[in-house]
Amino acid sequence: MKIVKIDLQKDIDLSYKIYIGKLQTIEVAKNRKVAIITNPKVAGLHLATLLTKLPKSELHIITIPDGEQYKNMESVDLILESLFNHKFNRRSLLISLGGGVIGDITGFTASLYQRGIEFIQIPTTLLSQVDASVGGKTGINNKFGKNLIGAFHQPQAVFIDPKFLETLPEREMNSGFSELLKMAIIFDRDFFEYLENNLNPDSEYMIKKSVELKAMVVSQDEKEKGIRASLNYGHTFGHVIENETKYSTYLHGEAVAIGMIMANELALELGMMSADEVNRIKKLLQVWKLPTTYQIENIDSFYQKFFLDKKSTDKNIKFIVPNGIGKFEFKDNLSEKVLKKVLTKFFRI
Amino acid sequence: MKIVKIDLQKDIDLSYKIYIGKLQTIEVAKNRKVAIITNPKVAGLHLATLLTKLPKSELHIITIPDGEQYKNMESVDLILESLFNHKFNRRSLLISLGGGVIGDITGFTASLYQRGIEFIQIPTTLLSQVDASVGGKTGINNKFGKNLIGAFHQPQAVFIDPKFLETLPEREMNSGFSELLKMAIIFDRDFFEYLENNLNPDSEYMIKKSVELKAMVVSQDEKEKGIRASLNYGHTFGHVIENETKYSTYLHGEAVAIGMIMANELALELGMMSADEVNRIKKLLQVWKLPTTYQIENIDSFYQKFFLDKKSTDKNIKFIVPNGIGKFEFKDNLSEKVLKKVLTKFFRI
Repeated sequence: MKIVKIDLQKDIDLSYKIYIGKLQTIEVAKNRKVAIITNPKVAGLHLATLLTKLPKSELHIITIPDGEQYKNMESVDLILESLFNHKFNRRSLLISLGGGVIGDITGFTASLYQRGIEFIQIPTTLLSQVDASVGGKTGINNKFGKNLIGAFHQPQAVFIDPKFLETLPEREMNSGFSELLKMAIIFDRDFFEYLENNLNPDSEYMIKKSVELKAMVVSQDEKEKGIRASLNYGHTFGHVIENETKYSTYLHGEAVAIGMIMANELALELGMMSADEVNRIKKLLQVWKLPTTYQIENIDSFYQKFFLDKKSTDKNIKFIVPNGIGKFEFKDNLSEKVLKKVLTKFFRI
Repeated sequence: MKIVKIDLQKDIDLSYKIYIGKLQTIEVAKNRKVAIITNPKVAGLHLATLLTKLPKSELHIITIPDGEQYKNMESVDLILESLFNHKFNRRSLLISLGGGVIGDITGFTASLYQRGIEFIQIPTTLLSQVDASVGGKTGINNKFGKNLIGAFHQPQAVFIDPKFLETLPEREMNSGFSELLKMAIIFDRDFFEYLENNLNPDSEYMIKKSVELKAMVVSQDEKEKGIRASLNYGHTFGHVIENETKYSTYLHGEAVAIGMIMANELALELGMMSADEVNRIKKLLQVWKLPTTYQIENIDSFYQKFFLDKKSTDKNIKFIVPNGIGKFEFKDNLSEKVLKKVLTKFFRI
């Protein structure tokens, strides 16, 4: 038996910068092909702005229809086909202009094309600015579930212009706030209190704080083997709610808001949070017009759905439970009894 | 403008071991799901052997049809569907048993499933043992060309059992030898002379040497930004030959053999190789029953096809030219005149 060890170079630079503020000029080498991936709605609102900042003589604009239902392999194939037809090569560049769907599809397509080309993200919703902008997760949905096929592929740069939020529908703005608030609750009590005391917070500031917190987590754990799982606070419950309501009743951040309320009730049950803290979070979610109640129809069925999550390994679900505002703990091996007791609070309230 | 720098952890361990010799027992944790990806032909020859080395109570066997034409997205979808149906999770494992097609599809599917799960490669052809086993390139073909969609995804381990080669058709064996000889010509004069002097070389030894040479290159340059391009020796010409003959006349290693002959003629033209060295290589290829002549029908058309290669950036093709046996140089900006002069030698010989 002979053994050859393959040692791969580990100093590949995967770092990138997130620029938060008024969109600046994006310089791209003259002979480099560029495609902007967007949807018709976002193109109508923001493409003109982007074009003034992208001094290129030739640009390809590829639009896919607006909506989560188009975050699928067909859209990826459509973009790939266009890139092949236009003879994009390994040095070509993709730019995503849009929300999470556009960002995820663009990143995933960039990861696949000729085994990976570079891409730049320009997120236009609060949710994608604070969430998808950090971490390099890309992916698509299929009939088995959401984000089940994908890749880790880091962008070259991310440009976040809070001005894009001025045209964002209020409900989507609030949904993005939910993910942003999540970061404050599990990591940063001061940031939570800033948001509590500033009901009209500075966009640039709150985006930066949230992005920094997520960056801190992701830089320690790109592939979600440890601390990155903390970002699932509110999501273990939220995913079940999205599943039960077939992704049609709530926006993602809204389901996460209810999920955080549920996780907080679990924290209360475990003696990790006071009733006062649970209430402060609930009040802030309500100020942002986020849902904080949910009607569980069948506790057994809701409970069983925890085990469908792609992040679950075997039968042990890891819950992220706040330990007071600004800290958290992983709790696994929670008994069925404790969990169902928490769920009962949402059964015919 | 605020800037947040995302620094990703760079000490992720991508290293893995290649075991060359009689297949040993593969230990897999009891609660870990395992799928073996293979094709009916290889399954008939080697699956029984593998099963004796894989003490698992439950295994999923997924077969895809034999042949390069099945290295496509449909096969990947078929495997993904099966993994979803069997509720494979992020800790599950894929094992490829077969040649390059099976290895590439398995690696690519593993890279996509839930953003990446682990896989083990058991290559059963000489070509896949010396080539696909090192470097983590995975991918599929589409109507635009070969390996145009894919990912870099390193296996957990590779098991190479030279015994599998006993059932390999002679023509496939020789085709694999062509890629192995390539490594000797560009990197290791002693290894070339061993092969020249041992027309019945020791399989384990020659596989190990070739794998070590490729490992040396890939460990310096996983993503083919520099020295890894040297592995394209013979391929710049070979790809055009495969394209012209629609991948139906020559096995890959056969096209590469002709490609090396052409690259050597270029070396002769540039004064980098002696006629004696060119002949020694030709003779060794002939001993292994590899083709060494080719009839170019149209020099212009052959020349234009250099620029179709996915590895080409813009209009400057980088040729890998031996500098004597055992060394090489990159040559770019070669004039159309010089290249066409070389091609003329293959025009109605």
